[in-house]
Amino acid sequence: MGARIGLIGLGTMGAALASNIAEKGFDIAVFNRTTKVTRDFVDGAGDLADRMTACESLEDFVAAIDAPRAIILMVPAGEPVDQQIEALRPLLDADDLIIDCGNANFHDTNRRMTESGGPFLGVGVSGGEEGARHGPAIMGGGEPGHWDRVADIMNAIAAKHEGEPCAGLLGPDGAGHFVKMVHNGIEYADMQMIAEIYGILRDGHGLSPDEIATVFEAWDKGPLKSYLIEITGKVARAADTATGKPLLDVIVDAAGQKGTGRWTAIESQHLLTPIPAIEAAVVARNVSSRRDERAAGQEMFGAAPQAVEIDRDTLEQALIAGKVLCYAQGFVMIAATCEAHGWDVDLPTVARIWREGCIIRSAMLDDMASALADHPGDNLMRTPHFAEMLKSTHDALRQVVSQAALAGHSVPALSSGLAYFDAMRTARGTANMIQAQRDFFGLHGFVHVDGREDVHGPWAGKDAGKQG
Amino acid sequence: MGARIGLIGLGTMGAALASNIAEKGFDIAVFNRTTKVTRDFVDGAGDLADRMTACESLEDFVAAIDAPRAIILMVPAGEPVDQQIEALRPLLDADDLIIDCGNANFHDTNRRMTESGGPFLGVGVSGGEEGARHGPAIMGGGEPGHWDRVADIMNAIAAKHEGEPCAGLLGPDGAGHFVKMVHNGIEYADMQMIAEIYGILRDGHGLSPDEIATVFEAWDKGPLKSYLIEITGKVARAADTATGKPLLDVIVDAAGQKGTGRWTAIESQHLLTPIPAIEAAVVARNVSSRRDERAAGQEMFGAAPQAVEIDRDTLEQALIAGKVLCYAQGFVMIAATCEAHGWDVDLPTVARIWREGCIIRSAMLDDMASALADHPGDNLMRTPHFAEMLKSTHDALRQVVSQAALAGHSVPALSSGLAYFDAMRTARGTANMIQAQRDFFGLHGFVHVDGREDVHGPWAGKDAGKQG
Repeated sequence: MGARIGLIGLGTMGAALASNIAEKGFDIAVFNRTTKVTRDFVDGAGDLADRMTACESLEDFVAAIDAPRAIILMVPAGEPVDQQIEALRPLLDADDLIIDCGNANFHDTNRRMTESGGPFLGVGVSGGEEGARHGPAIMGGGEPGHWDRVADIMNAIAAKHEGEPCAGLLGPDGAGHFVKMVHNGIEYADMQMIAEIYGILRDGHGLSPDEIATVFEAWDKGPLKSYLIEITGKVARAADTATGKPLLDVIVDAAGQKGTGRWTAIESQHLLTPIPAIEAAVVARNVSSRRDERAAGQEMFGAAPQAVEIDRDTLEQALIAGKVLCYAQGFVMIAATCEAHGWDVDLPTVARIWREGCIIRSAMLDDMASALADHPGDNLMRTPHFAEMLKSTHDALRQVVSQAALAGHSVPALSSGLAYFDAMRTARGTANMIQAQRDFFGLHGFVHVDGREDVHGPWAGKDAGKQG
Repeated sequence: MGARIGLIGLGTMGAALASNIAEKGFDIAVFNRTTKVTRDFVDGAGDLADRMTACESLEDFVAAIDAPRAIILMVPAGEPVDQQIEALRPLLDADDLIIDCGNANFHDTNRRMTESGGPFLGVGVSGGEEGARHGPAIMGGGEPGHWDRVADIMNAIAAKHEGEPCAGLLGPDGAGHFVKMVHNGIEYADMQMIAEIYGILRDGHGLSPDEIATVFEAWDKGPLKSYLIEITGKVARAADTATGKPLLDVIVDAAGQKGTGRWTAIESQHLLTPIPAIEAAVVARNVSSRRDERAAGQEMFGAAPQAVEIDRDTLEQALIAGKVLCYAQGFVMIAATCEAHGWDVDLPTVARIWREGCIIRSAMLDDMASALADHPGDNLMRTPHFAEMLKSTHDALRQVVSQAALAGHSVPALSSGLAYFDAMRTARGTANMIQAQRDFFGLHGFVHVDGREDVHGPWAGKDAGKQG
C-alpha cells in the first residue's frame, strides 16, 4: 500500500508540515528537488520516518502515492509553483488533486483553478515553522468535493481551539489564500502597533528591554492576551548570544518583508475598502529600511522621541483600541472581496480559524467570532461587545496619539486607527470641501443634500449639465 | 493645405484643448464619435472655427490632416483608447503619430508604445477644463524625435511661468502619464489636508463658510499661495443657486474619485516607496463614501469633533509642514520609479512644469525646483530651504495633530505626515522589535549591529543557519 498523501518542497515550512502529517498517523511520500535534502530530512525524522517515503524522482514520488492522489506543494510562491505544476500534471491521473499550501498571491490561485489542469486547492497556512509542525491555522480555497478528500488530514494537523480544528474551506478559488493575505496584513498592523508602543516605553519612559518585557508579560494576562504579545515579552527578555547584551539592542532597526502585507494594501486599494492600519504598517517597514536617510534626518533635525508621561494602563488601552479598529478594517475588506468575487466567506468561521495556530491568534478573536456571528454584515466596531470596548478605550488612544505627536514618537498605525475611528463616527465629514473643489476645477458634480445628483456650483456655465 | 494636427474626442477636456490649439494659430481637424457633438462644437467656436475642420468620419478626419500626421486622442482612458487606436491605425501612414492626452494608466502607455502600431506619445495634461482651454501643464512621455514634431504646439498651448512653457518630454514610454499620476496623488493629499484644516475651522472654531473663506484668502497671500488654496476661498464664499445657502453646507460629504489617486497609492506599494499622505487621502475618500456607516457610528459613539484652541497661524504652519512632507514623498516616488524602469526623469523639470497650469500649481513649486536642482538625489525635506521650513513649522504640525486627536477631528493625512517626519529623522527606530518577532516565529533572520547579516536569536536551533 502506498502513501495517503505526498508533499513536494522540504524547506522550513514543508519539512515541518510533512513531519506534522506523519506524526498524526498519515503515510506521506516526500520529494525535494535537491535529493540530499530529502534524504537528510527522512534520516533525521526519527520514528516518524516509518511513515515517510523519500522519493528521488518525481516519477517515483507519484508512484508512491495511492490513487486518487493528493499532493501538497510547499515550493516558493510565484513562478516555481507554476513550474512544479507543469512538471507534475503530466505524471498524474485526471482526478489527482494538487494543493498549494504556499503563500500564493490569490490572483495566481484563481488562475490555477483552471490552468493547473486538474483538481486544485489553494490553502493558506499560518503559524510559522512552529505552527506548521505542531498545529497551524489552515484556510482553504477551492471546491468542497476536493477539500473533503483531505479534510481529515487538514483537521488532524491543524491547531485546536477547545478541541475544534482551526481549519476549513472558506470559499472557492483563491478565497483561502486571500484570507491568508488579509491575516498577514493584520499581522503587519498588529506588529507595527506593538512596535509603536514599544518605542514609547523605550524612548518615552526610558525602560530597559527587561523592564519592557515585564510590561508585555503583564499585558499577556489581560484583554491583549495573544501570541504576538507573548512573544514580544520573550524577545524583550532574550539576550544576544554573541555579546550578552539584550537582543533587541543589537538588532538593526530595518524591517524586512516577504510581500504579503504589501499585497493586502494593494488589494484594499483595488477594492476601495479603507484599511489604513495595514497601509501604515507597510509604509513604516519601508521607511525603516531607509536607515541612511533616517540618520541624515536626525543629524539635520535632531533626534525626535522625547520623554512622555503616559501611564501603562493608558498604553494598554490604546493598543486595545488600535487592535479592534485594525481587525474591523480587515473583516470589512474580506466582506468587500466576497462581494467583488461572488464568494461567500463566512466571517465568524475566519475568526474561529484564527483563534489558534496562526500568528495573530488571540483571546479576542473568540469574541470577534461571536460578534460577527451575532451581527452579520455589521462593521465589527459597532457590534455591542466591541463598541463597548472602543467606548472605554478610545480616549486612551487619543491620549497616546496626542502625546506621541508632541513628543516626537512616530505612531503611524495608531494614529491612522484614531483617524479612522473619528471619521467613521462623524456623520458630517469634510469631504464636501473636496467635492466642491473637484466641481470647481473639473465640473465633476456633487450630490446636493436635497438628494439631487450631479449638481454643479454657481461657476458652471449653461452647458454644465451636459458635461462631466 | 490641410490641418496641422487632429484631435479625437470632444468631451469637456477635448473640446477645451482643441479650442486652445486653434486659438494659438494651429489648424486643427476634429472628430467625435457622435457627429452632433462635432458640429455643435465647431458651430459654437466663433472665430476659432476658421481654424477648425469638423470631420464626420474617421476617413475624412485622417484625410483632413497634413502628413506626417499628429493626432491627439482625448477619449476616456482604458479600453476606449485601445479601440480608438485600433480603428485609426489602419487609416494612417507608418510614421503618423498618435498622442494619448487622456488620463491613461502609465502601464497601458508603456504597452501602447509598441502595441499601438506606430509612433506614440503618452501625455499627461493637468489643469482641468480651464487649464486645457487656456494653458495646462503638459507632461510628455515617449521618444524625443516624436515629441519634437509637436513641441511647438505643446509649448504654445501650455501654461507659462514667466514666459517659460510648463510643458516638456519627461522620459520614455509612460513617464509622462506616470508623472501625471503622481501629480494627481499629490493633488489628493493637498486637498485632503486642506479639508482637514477646514474641518478644524468649521467644527473646532465654529466658523461659517464666509469666515473660513476669509482665512484661506489670507493664506493665499503667504507661503501657501496656490491654486488649491485660492479655490478653497472661492468655494467657501460661493452660494448655492437653488437655496441661497452657503454652497459648502449643501454639498453631501461623500468624495468621488476617478481612480488616479488610487493608482498612485498602488504604485507606491509596488515600488516600496512610502507615500503615506497620498494613501491617507485615498482612504479618507473611501471612508467618506460610507455615509450610512458614519451616521450609525455617530449614533453609537456620539459626534466626534469638539471645540479646539489652535490659532490660525498654527493651522497655517501645520498645513505648510504637511504640504512639504507630502511633496517630498511624491518626488521620492518619481525617483524610485525612474530607477525601477530605467527612466531618467529630471525632478527639477517636473517641479517647473507643475508651477503653472496644473491643479497643484503653487508658489512653493518654484523653490522646490531650485532645491531639487541644487541637491540632486536628496530627499526634498533635507534640502536647506525646505529643511528650514520644516524646522520652523513641524511644531505647529505637532500641535494640530495633538489637539485634533484630543478633540476628535480626523486628520489622517496631516498625522501621517507627522509620523513620516518623525520616523525619517530618527536614526534608531522601532523596527528592531519587528525583526525580532519575525525571527522568533519565522526564522527570517536580522542584521546585527556589528554588521553580520542573517543572524538569529537564541531560540534558533542548530539548523537555523541552513533555514530562511
